[in-house]
Amino acid sequence: MEHPIIAILGGTGKEGTGLALRWAAAGYPVVIGSRELEKASQAAENINLMLGVKTVRGKKNIDAAKAADICVLTVIQSAHNETLDNIKGVLEGKILIDATSRVDYRDPKPPSPPSAGQQAQEILGASVRVVAAFQNVPAKLLSKGIGQPLDADVLVCTDDLEAAQQVIRLIEAAGMRGYYAGGLENATVVEGMTSILISMNKHYGLKDASIKVAGIPSA
Amino acid sequence: MEHPIIAILGGTGKEGTGLALRWAAAGYPVVIGSRELEKASQAAENINLMLGVKTVRGKKNIDAAKAADICVLTVIQSAHNETLDNIKGVLEGKILIDATSRVDYRDPKPPSPPSAGQQAQEILGASVRVVAAFQNVPAKLLSKGIGQPLDADVLVCTDDLEAAQQVIRLIEAAGMRGYYAGGLENATVVEGMTSILISMNKHYGLKDASIKVAGIPSA
Repeated sequence: MEHPIIAILGGTGKEGTGLALRWAAAGYPVVIGSRELEKASQAAENINLMLGVKTVRGKKNIDAAKAADICVLTVIQSAHNETLDNIKGVLEGKILIDATSRVDYRDPKPPSPPSAGQQAQEILGASVRVVAAFQNVPAKLLSKGIGQPLDADVLVCTDDLEAAQQVIRLIEAAGMRGYYAGGLENATVVEGMTSILISMNKHYGLKDASIKVAGIPSA
Repeated sequence: MEHPIIAILGGTGKEGTGLALRWAAAGYPVVIGSRELEKASQAAENINLMLGVKTVRGKKNIDAAKAADICVLTVIQSAHNETLDNIKGVLEGKILIDATSRVDYRDPKPPSPPSAGQQAQEILGASVRVVAAFQNVPAKLLSKGIGQPLDADVLVCTDDLEAAQQVIRLIEAAGMRGYYAGGLENATVVEGMTSILISMNKHYGLKDASIKVAGIPSA
């Protein structure tokens, strides 16, 4: 089966770059999206150079979304709704993975419902399959040990089980285990785990606390 | 250091019994509390017989709370506030561990703030140190392999760091690892994880999914 093209919207930050590195290293064609074409192209070029590949391209967010089969949203929280408004016309029939945690690093508090993913679904309408995932993965871990398994699991919340399966395959390609964790409503809890992980990191003087799931054997 | 006396209020259910077994096996004096003295005494006697000890007693909830240094609340969700109202007079200066998850097994949804722990603190007042913990531990796991480590971590939320340390010691005595996970406000998220674990168990056809923390080395 041919790999789907993955667009990472707001993909020039740490999290987007880390995911792009892992998927490009696993052989997936990746498009880095940004508000500015130049920033996107530069980030893509850096990843191609690091990996010795030519499969990563840079485009403006809307063009990246157009070119892709699956889009991953890794913009900062304040740009979440506006970015979705701008690209909603080109997402029909596609999967949108929403990685947004509405948690402020300086003052971490559990966010209120509806989840970022539910808000995305509301903006995009029923023709786009929204999947919430990657909210808890420490961004710094993603860029280390590319091609090796990562000590963090990914909770996958969506109302579309078939989309969940596709996203879980992408998670595995990036070196993590993904678990179906209920509907988009549950994503508020997953966002809140980011608040807990930040509290832990501050208390223990660390940076990379993460969540794992136990009690579910490998498929 | 002498072990504190632990009261488990609403301690005749699966979760309370499991915790009682683990602490009694570790040498802690345990008092099982119930609304009915007879039920409490019977549950205590069962545990004494199972372990071959005589250190577990049964009392009515209020008398159990009176006799204890640390109380653990494992009543069903609907009895949470009423039980606390009834015992608030005897908890001054003590630690109250609130294990309540406000999640319905049949229709799991993330609960809203304030957390059960925040509600307990509101009812009990500032003289009682409320710590939210154990909301996510699968009750069935607790009663298996007593004396052996358990494949589930405990997130500890409280506004009192010294109380957190004491509770983390109890968690370790019960064969688990406990992590300070921020203030009582964060406990809403931990309760919500129960909703996620139930969703996972249903999806994967399992019963004992649990949460672990990675990235924090042992002290």
